[in-house]
Amino acid sequence: MTTENLKIIKLEVKDVRFPTSLEAHGSDAMHIGPDYSCAYVILKTGKGTEGHGLTFACGRGTEIIVKAIQSLSHLVVGQVAVDIFKDFANFWRNLTSEPQMRWLGPEKGVIHLAASAIINALWDLWAKLLNKPLWRLLVDMDPEQLISTIDFRYITDIITKEEAIEILKNQQGKKEERITKLMAKGYPAYTTEVGWLGYSNETIVDLCQKYLDLGFTSFKVKVGQNIQNDINRLKIVRNTIGYDKQLMVDANQVWGVEEAIEWMKKLSDFKIYWIEEPTSPDDILGHATISKALKPLGIGVATGEVCCNRVMFKQFLQADAIQFCQIDAARLGGVNEILSVYLMAHKLGVKVCPHSGGVGLCEMVQHLQMWDYVSVSGTMKDRVIEYIDQQHEHFVNPLVVKNACYQAPTAAGYSTTFLSETIAKYEYPIGSEWELMFSQGLFPDPRKQK
Amino acid sequence: MTTENLKIIKLEVKDVRFPTSLEAHGSDAMHIGPDYSCAYVILKTGKGTEGHGLTFACGRGTEIIVKAIQSLSHLVVGQVAVDIFKDFANFWRNLTSEPQMRWLGPEKGVIHLAASAIINALWDLWAKLLNKPLWRLLVDMDPEQLISTIDFRYITDIITKEEAIEILKNQQGKKEERITKLMAKGYPAYTTEVGWLGYSNETIVDLCQKYLDLGFTSFKVKVGQNIQNDINRLKIVRNTIGYDKQLMVDANQVWGVEEAIEWMKKLSDFKIYWIEEPTSPDDILGHATISKALKPLGIGVATGEVCCNRVMFKQFLQADAIQFCQIDAARLGGVNEILSVYLMAHKLGVKVCPHSGGVGLCEMVQHLQMWDYVSVSGTMKDRVIEYIDQQHEHFVNPLVVKNACYQAPTAAGYSTTFLSETIAKYEYPIGSEWELMFSQGLFPDPRKQK
Repeated sequence: MTTENLKIIKLEVKDVRFPTSLEAHGSDAMHIGPDYSCAYVILKTGKGTEGHGLTFACGRGTEIIVKAIQSLSHLVVGQVAVDIFKDFANFWRNLTSEPQMRWLGPEKGVIHLAASAIINALWDLWAKLLNKPLWRLLVDMDPEQLISTIDFRYITDIITKEEAIEILKNQQGKKEERITKLMAKGYPAYTTEVGWLGYSNETIVDLCQKYLDLGFTSFKVKVGQNIQNDINRLKIVRNTIGYDKQLMVDANQVWGVEEAIEWMKKLSDFKIYWIEEPTSPDDILGHATISKALKPLGIGVATGEVCCNRVMFKQFLQADAIQFCQIDAARLGGVNEILSVYLMAHKLGVKVCPHSGGVGLCEMVQHLQMWDYVSVSGTMKDRVIEYIDQQHEHFVNPLVVKNACYQAPTAAGYSTTFLSETIAKYEYPIGSEWELMFSQGLFPDPRKQK
Repeated sequence: MTTENLKIIKLEVKDVRFPTSLEAHGSDAMHIGPDYSCAYVILKTGKGTEGHGLTFACGRGTEIIVKAIQSLSHLVVGQVAVDIFKDFANFWRNLTSEPQMRWLGPEKGVIHLAASAIINALWDLWAKLLNKPLWRLLVDMDPEQLISTIDFRYITDIITKEEAIEILKNQQGKKEERITKLMAKGYPAYTTEVGWLGYSNETIVDLCQKYLDLGFTSFKVKVGQNIQNDINRLKIVRNTIGYDKQLMVDANQVWGVEEAIEWMKKLSDFKIYWIEEPTSPDDILGHATISKALKPLGIGVATGEVCCNRVMFKQFLQADAIQFCQIDAARLGGVNEILSVYLMAHKLGVKVCPHSGGVGLCEMVQHLQMWDYVSVSGTMKDRVIEYIDQQHEHFVNPLVVKNACYQAPTAAGYSTTFLSETIAKYEYPIGSEWELMFSQGLFPDPRKQK
């Protein structure tokens, strides 16, 4: 391979949306009727190898991320991929701190989501060039090389580069044994499918039974709109799955701090493993207060799916505000930043249980969590990866869940390459499925709304 | 006025940029060569009265905010202005929590900047409809009405609606006396003009002398790129202004937590009133650590210009992480959210000294700080408004600073209406000045970069 062959000659970005709002899938106390979507980046190299990366969105507004990716693309196009990988932390900082654009964040919101899609595409490219699944690329890197991808700005008060290398070095000897175990068994998953807010009681029972039959032992239910309704639904779930299974609840940020504590006290009889997103995702001190109040009830606190960067995670970990750290593969600035959060969580003894479910999120987090098992924490104990059975059929290498475990991916890349027909059908608003739905009056055509 | 006349019939948004990167104005340790810009919103009513509002940006990326404003505009156009004002907190929440779009924040980054421009335009419209400057509209509202504009979600653990009303009611009796004083004297300003990083020693001395001659007693200097350079520049400044004047420094987020403490210890001989943005703007606990370490040296900690929402400010205030709260008029979600931060700061005894300087920011914060003086804190003691002499000439009613004090605005509105020739000249990329600069080769024409 010559360097010229590895030049990134083009960045394409597509707004891909699925009409999930037509059913109640994915609805929660805050996100009513989302159309699961993504801003999808394709990096083309001279060699022909492509990197595909995405960031998740909920429908309207995906076009803003697309615009942001276009605005950042001049920092990527024309660069040589291997040069980026050689000094990835520096590239990451340049992308997330572009002097004129960082005002729009910094490192949060739309521009960080945009950076995430680009960075994820670069990791996909790297793994494909080496013909490895991403988790294996991470596991095979020597500690110094892996750590060289991370920007340690603002986190050295918790973890230094040297400490991070040391953590990885300490696990090197156990890697082969863990890889073998992982390849044989996979990584435990939990299901969020049983308790979306829009579902009827019958649907909840049917789904609980379905996932029990599939071997699941860990379940999550949405709560927070009405306490009596929550109690009724949790009764139904516990009556179906029993009290020996793991049960989590998720409030999707609806409560204030005191309200969260009061509400959860009323649900504590249901043996809740964690309450997820009890209040504002920015309220570190609020989560710490909730955590302290709920600890005597045996309820842990979880958050992270909209935690915007490593600096926020650092504080959630420092303040004992969460017992479960829910990194999101497309919210943080891609793999590089997520690695730093895993390392901080490990150092401070907090379990990482990734958020997932949105388009491509399950596909990505499985790689990260498997790297954590092999190279960082060395254990799957009390850790689970969220699993939702949606949109997987659109990927060339969809995840495989067997016996309620994610199976270790074997195909090269980050598992986020769409089938070409998916893009042809669901690119918004020009895909054939969207044209059809516009013509059927199921959705308004945005091109006719000027 | 009929209701129909007050319907918002159109939202126009413009990308307006000034070529400030051609000189060193506005450069700091993080933002090298910004082109001071804004996303500028014009709301048109049936009656003809317009509301003009903006959010500041640094050049590249302004187009992303413009896109976000377009994506949010369907929530505004078609609404009747007086109906919005009657239940403004509810409108604010709908705008900042649109179910599909809140995933892109929530309440931070590009979509919150976009919301800010829209909300600011609505307040400008409200003040113009009542023919009052914004500060006077706020001061004249009865406490219940003013508080009804605020969304208290996520902050009731610090301040409730009832407490906020009580704070305002307690100040009612003193209002007239304070208005008289304010109209006579104005509100103290400080200057940031003397110490941008790009300036030569001679320029620094000349500017210090200039602002001394204008009556200024409070000065701010950028630091953080090189300790010896900082020491040299602070020596020059102190030698020129003396030790009886107030001197602040601003690191614009360059340091880690420990580095900030060490660096500032080396500058403590210069009698520093506050260190601004010592580290990541998201690092509440880091600021608390820095605050604690610098308190014995008499150095306060200030931050806020990129603090993304009231929940983050709440925690900075709770954690004693800042002694000076630097709200930004276009970063938070407009006036409504800023009012809540002033009220929390008052309750927790932290002084608000607004960030300013970017396009239109001085124009806006003067109104907010004057409301605080008359209706909330009742004092100007140890409080100052940042002042930078840039881009004021582009506004129909530019601020007036006399004897180093902002003079109370008298024209109706929020002081953010551009002269029409400014838009004709500086709208990017189609304004006549930009066309000229493209033709002169001073900037690349973005339309030719496909």
